Amino acid sequence: MKPQTDISALAADVRAGNRRALARAITLVESARADHRTQALALLSAIGTDREALRIGMSGTPGVGKSTFIESFGLMLTAQGLRVAVLAVDPSSARSGGSILGDKTRMDHLARDPNAFIRPSPSQTELGGVARRSREAVALCEAAGYDVVLIETVGVGQSETVVAQMSDLFVLLLAPAGGDELQGVKRGIMEIADLILVNKADGDLKPQAMRTCADYAGALRLLRKRPQDPPGFPKALTVSALENAGLAAAWAEMQALIDWRRAAGVWDQTRQAQAIYWFQEEVRQGMLQFLRNDVETAARMRATEDDVRAGTLAPAAGAALVLDALGKGPR
Amino acid sequence: MKPQTDISALAADVRAGNRRALARAITLVESARADHRTQALALLSAIGTDREALRIGMSGTPGVGKSTFIESFGLMLTAQGLRVAVLAVDPSSARSGGSILGDKTRMDHLARDPNAFIRPSPSQTELGGVARRSREAVALCEAAGYDVVLIETVGVGQSETVVAQMSDLFVLLLAPAGGDELQGVKRGIMEIADLILVNKADGDLKPQAMRTCADYAGALRLLRKRPQDPPGFPKALTVSALENAGLAAAWAEMQALIDWRRAAGVWDQTRQAQAIYWFQEEVRQGMLQFLRNDVETAARMRATEDDVRAGTLAPAAGAALVLDALGKGPR
Repeated sequence: MKPQTDISALAADVRAGNRRALARAITLVESARADHRTQALALLSAIGTDREALRIGMSGTPGVGKSTFIESFGLMLTAQGLRVAVLAVDPSSARSGGSILGDKTRMDHLARDPNAFIRPSPSQTELGGVARRSREAVALCEAAGYDVVLIETVGVGQSETVVAQMSDLFVLLLAPAGGDELQGVKRGIMEIADLILVNKADGDLKPQAMRTCADYAGALRLLRKRPQDPPGFPKALTVSALENAGLAAAWAEMQALIDWRRAAGVWDQTRQAQAIYWFQEEVRQGMLQFLRNDVETAARMRATEDDVRAGTLAPAAGAALVLDALGKGPR
Repeated sequence: MKPQTDISALAADVRAGNRRALARAITLVESARADHRTQALALLSAIGTDREALRIGMSGTPGVGKSTFIESFGLMLTAQGLRVAVLAVDPSSARSGGSILGDKTRMDHLARDPNAFIRPSPSQTELGGVARRSREAVALCEAAGYDVVLIETVGVGQSETVVAQMSDLFVLLLAPAGGDELQGVKRGIMEIADLILVNKADGDLKPQAMRTCADYAGALRLLRKRPQDPPGFPKALTVSALENAGLAAAWAEMQALIDWRRAAGVWDQTRQAQAIYWFQEEVRQGMLQFLRNDVETAARMRATEDDVRAGTLAPAAGAALVLDALGKGPR
């Protein structure tokens, strides 16, 4: 891909809503090559920031029926004339050999819908790398005029936290579960979930789904009220992606939450805080990348970590060695 | 304080268990002065790493009776011949005008116990600064031969997370509460609590305390099992610091948990991982400190953040500007 001319043309095609151009643009921002990164930054500047989509972060462990939910939910939205983009943030994709969305046939109706765009997770193992690029992919989808951007993650390690940092609201999808060993929600996620949806509330599982939903509603009530929540949120609901039941109600709740946040100014504050978060994160990552990539520094880091791990060197003393060598010791 | 000679003498006095020397040593590591920092690093190397205390992180919001609990719990331990150090990590101390431990009269019996050492939080507003130094204060207490180091925090923002990074086990202290509006546990803390203690299980509050305890025991069962937990943990118990009830049971649970973690190798792994965490954190903080303190760079950061917040500059593009200027752009 050649410099400037192509970039502005690509930006125009993206803004025109050309899905192939959008796919190429995302490939560009995902590329690790230095020259591609330069072009990616030019592209991100060229697409503008005048368009705004509703960014919905969504997490669900395998088996909760996430693909089915996204397909049913997405088709409901496109049927309302909305354009829907689905992105996956899956740091494990490289390990698991292809992200949850790699196999589009699992949501083939949505994949064939002209008003929908589905993008698998970039196959990187390092969450930081995946997340930073996914966040730029979200911006590209917004520029392409999508009304709703679904950012889904399997919830490995910290992935929910970083997805929350690029979302306007966060949905946790669960399956009905029995007894005490429910599905094991990571404790941290209760911090960020705006809406808990218990899926598979159909057939024999329906009573179990309602019990599970009541359990989580109770657990949510034990947790502290957050300033970004209107009365009644975070909320737990039951849905059936299979029978398209509860999806409209869930969408109504999301809109009610977002309307409140827009009116309360939370929307703007959050978007600005997120932008600063990613800016500082990029600087931090760039700095740490330097620590890894600068051969001399990287070797010093590793050698120092051995001593720190062995306990023969205090963490601060080890850090001082590295920082002094970089000419960045504590002032 | 003058160089080398004094430092080795101070290290010897600390290891001899001299409380005044320990207090001076902690003041030294808390100092922001560059020359003090150099001496502090020398001191941390001089005290050695051969001694090991049980580090108990503890969080509780004002009103749960934390001071009373620490006094009763600490006196129980010293009565068993154990030496107990209590440190506070309270990033709000500067704001609130003195840490929770500033007023020692709130635990005057323990404060007068020759086998106890109580240290208020350094009065810094920045959590990173407080935490890094507190972690070094813990190491000093270990070198001074204390058997148990209680690291307490009021749980402002992320303070529990950083205290957990310097603790072998983490205790959340709660008060009995009625109805749905319990005391509002920060969602994130459920991630790190090994033991939840519901205090004030005495008099009229006893039934309420038992209900609260049952509620949290139920909530804990909804959460995913962690690899560092033996069967039955994390656990919720009721205690009464006022009537010294349940304290021995709580101590027994802590010992059972720690024995299991030692046998399972979790103890060593955790300590090593924590050392690496603090080493990398020191490097990161040193780098970011450079971003703030280097006048030219700091000005560029601020100017860039304005554009990022306004949305006229993409986070990654802004970061590239700063990193390129530092000669640390993505390679």
